[in-house]
Amino acid sequence: MTQRIAVLGATGSIGDSALAILADYPHEYEVYALSGHQRLDKLLALCQQFIPKRVCVPTAVVDEFAQRLKAAALDIDVVGGDAGLNDIATDNQVDTVVAAIVGAAGLPSTLAAARAGKRILLANKEALVMAGQVMIAAVKTHHATLLPLDSEHNAIFQCLPPVIQQDNTQIHDRCHGVRKLWLTASGGPFLQQSFSQMQQASVAEAVKHPNWSMGRKISVDSATMMNKGLELIEACHLFDLSEDKIDVVIHPQSIIHSMVEYSDGSFLAQLGSPDMKTPIAHALSYPARINSGSQPLDLYALSGLEFIKPDLQKFACLRLARQAMQAGTQATIVLNAANEIAVAAFLAGQVRLTDIADINEQALTGVQVSTLNANADIDDILAIDTVARRYTASIIAKLA
Amino acid sequence: MTQRIAVLGATGSIGDSALAILADYPHEYEVYALSGHQRLDKLLALCQQFIPKRVCVPTAVVDEFAQRLKAAALDIDVVGGDAGLNDIATDNQVDTVVAAIVGAAGLPSTLAAARAGKRILLANKEALVMAGQVMIAAVKTHHATLLPLDSEHNAIFQCLPPVIQQDNTQIHDRCHGVRKLWLTASGGPFLQQSFSQMQQASVAEAVKHPNWSMGRKISVDSATMMNKGLELIEACHLFDLSEDKIDVVIHPQSIIHSMVEYSDGSFLAQLGSPDMKTPIAHALSYPARINSGSQPLDLYALSGLEFIKPDLQKFACLRLARQAMQAGTQATIVLNAANEIAVAAFLAGQVRLTDIADINEQALTGVQVSTLNANADIDDILAIDTVARRYTASIIAKLA
Repeated sequence: MTQRIAVLGATGSIGDSALAILADYPHEYEVYALSGHQRLDKLLALCQQFIPKRVCVPTAVVDEFAQRLKAAALDIDVVGGDAGLNDIATDNQVDTVVAAIVGAAGLPSTLAAARAGKRILLANKEALVMAGQVMIAAVKTHHATLLPLDSEHNAIFQCLPPVIQQDNTQIHDRCHGVRKLWLTASGGPFLQQSFSQMQQASVAEAVKHPNWSMGRKISVDSATMMNKGLELIEACHLFDLSEDKIDVVIHPQSIIHSMVEYSDGSFLAQLGSPDMKTPIAHALSYPARINSGSQPLDLYALSGLEFIKPDLQKFACLRLARQAMQAGTQATIVLNAANEIAVAAFLAGQVRLTDIADINEQALTGVQVSTLNANADIDDILAIDTVARRYTASIIAKLA
Repeated sequence: MTQRIAVLGATGSIGDSALAILADYPHEYEVYALSGHQRLDKLLALCQQFIPKRVCVPTAVVDEFAQRLKAAALDIDVVGGDAGLNDIATDNQVDTVVAAIVGAAGLPSTLAAARAGKRILLANKEALVMAGQVMIAAVKTHHATLLPLDSEHNAIFQCLPPVIQQDNTQIHDRCHGVRKLWLTASGGPFLQQSFSQMQQASVAEAVKHPNWSMGRKISVDSATMMNKGLELIEACHLFDLSEDKIDVVIHPQSIIHSMVEYSDGSFLAQLGSPDMKTPIAHALSYPARINSGSQPLDLYALSGLEFIKPDLQKFACLRLARQAMQAGTQATIVLNAANEIAVAAFLAGQVRLTDIADINEQALTGVQVSTLNANADIDDILAIDTVARRYTASIIAKLA
């Protein structure tokens, strides 16, 4: 049976990879809906290629985009803004939602998809970092399915016991022999440099990731290892584990994408080329497997795979992520918001790379928010996010 | 429910590891029967420790051993020889047979266990190398379960899709996304040496395995990589794949114990300390997991994991194994028999290490046997084995 897919965030890099695979399997998957935000020319081209039934664009450009589709003789329903995204994410005809919108903007539609019981291929980090509890509760209540696209979480998913894979990856106390999860990290461009060298890093140096080609924000997060901290928080929610059950190991070659350690001494690991098409193909076809079109890993060409314990002085963001996870969801929302503002300030040349951790720590300590209760919803979450962003901006203003 | 276990080959190294685990789980597992061949003092001590219901010893010493048990005030049924082993392997009370007898001697009882529909934890290589087709047919017909204990095959088992794990690991044409299996090999003590250095190797040098502590015969097989060739043949039967779907990669650190490559570009790998307790604990408790008592792998201490393509000139035995597998079961029986005789001759100082491959190749070419048909049984197999041993001995006599 053909699976009907909505790709939210179709013009970004996850969208590119997902659509490249979907194009190879026209009988297995139907591209039913797409959304795009800034790259509307690209979105139009995708509409011409895939002829989806529906497309979502920013509210302000709905009419204009509808005209362009009409001019191209395409009969596609155009919807706009958050309401449009939610509409697509919950469309009765949609089986699977690829949640690839970057940032808090992707939160409402991802949650809507969970509440509509969809199969969700999750690339949006904020859904778990900011709204992990709400998200997982929605998935459970509405019998949605959550399949992670992040290479690390997807690797862990593949290495989990089948019984946990089939139960939305919730490990909790029925551990099925899982002793620990191991997130691998590249260590970023400053792994071999001292803290003082890192302090002097230019923007150009900071965004130069050794293995993966990624956006600027996430590249900076990789340089500070905040990226791994956010992934740790995601993993806690996704796999229902406390942070002390998840360790981080720096593996500069990025060949092993993460691991599960079992009580009998086995470590199961997923390896592969650093190509997002592999985890996307895995999640699309799970529990079957399809060809992803990624470059096969040449095992014989590998050598010198290394494993290093992260230095928490140098990569303080990793320590802050654990601290926030222990403190509760309100703290992880603050950390995520503070970090976005701090990274933007670094990219704008206002603060140094190593200031990011200090700013994040000041925000974690200084932002006054109450503990989120079990009934908290997206508005409560976004309220904390707003307070934290404002507070962080004021810290940076004082610094500058 | 308590699982009743028969450990055949209880006094060897696999027996040691299995019993060390079983001793930790007295409520989960009952050591119902043991067998031993040469180390009868050790067997007696095991009888005192585990108080099994039955024990098997060589026919010639049944009475003597029964007396010793009586003197120790132990009421244990003593049986003898092949008939005794079969008796234990098929005992109605036995759930699981640990098939850890070394060599062709373990063949009949392992096959008997399969025909009795037992859960078999397989360490005996000959059951698959010599009698793969007969063995797998018996497992299927009698709904037995085969769980591999070899670290490589156990690693592959752990990395296979659940649906294949549950179907006695038979991959065949319903591949479930499996593209290829990767057997890892240490490369043995001569990996970094030239063929001519290998030619001059003493017995002491050849039996010095870099990572695992093993017997002399298997250590020599590791030095020639015949060991990996035999494992390749085993894997073909165990996983129902042709030899071209199984690749070998030298990984001198022996941390990754083998891998499964999937069509989406994922490689799943099992890593661990080189300790047989891990695969044994896995197979004992499958699909659950128990603590194996093995030393946990210290990921942070790992470094410089390497992957090298095997040199088939230097390690010709690996090429011969593929050749034999292509030719059919009769050829793998000949190769196995020839190799045993050739290794014994090397250990006795009669031939050089590098002569082993030449002798094996001459035997493969020279031994005249007809193709085994689907109804072949153990007698047909043992007949070929006898002819091959005799032929190989004559080659060696000519050489010396």
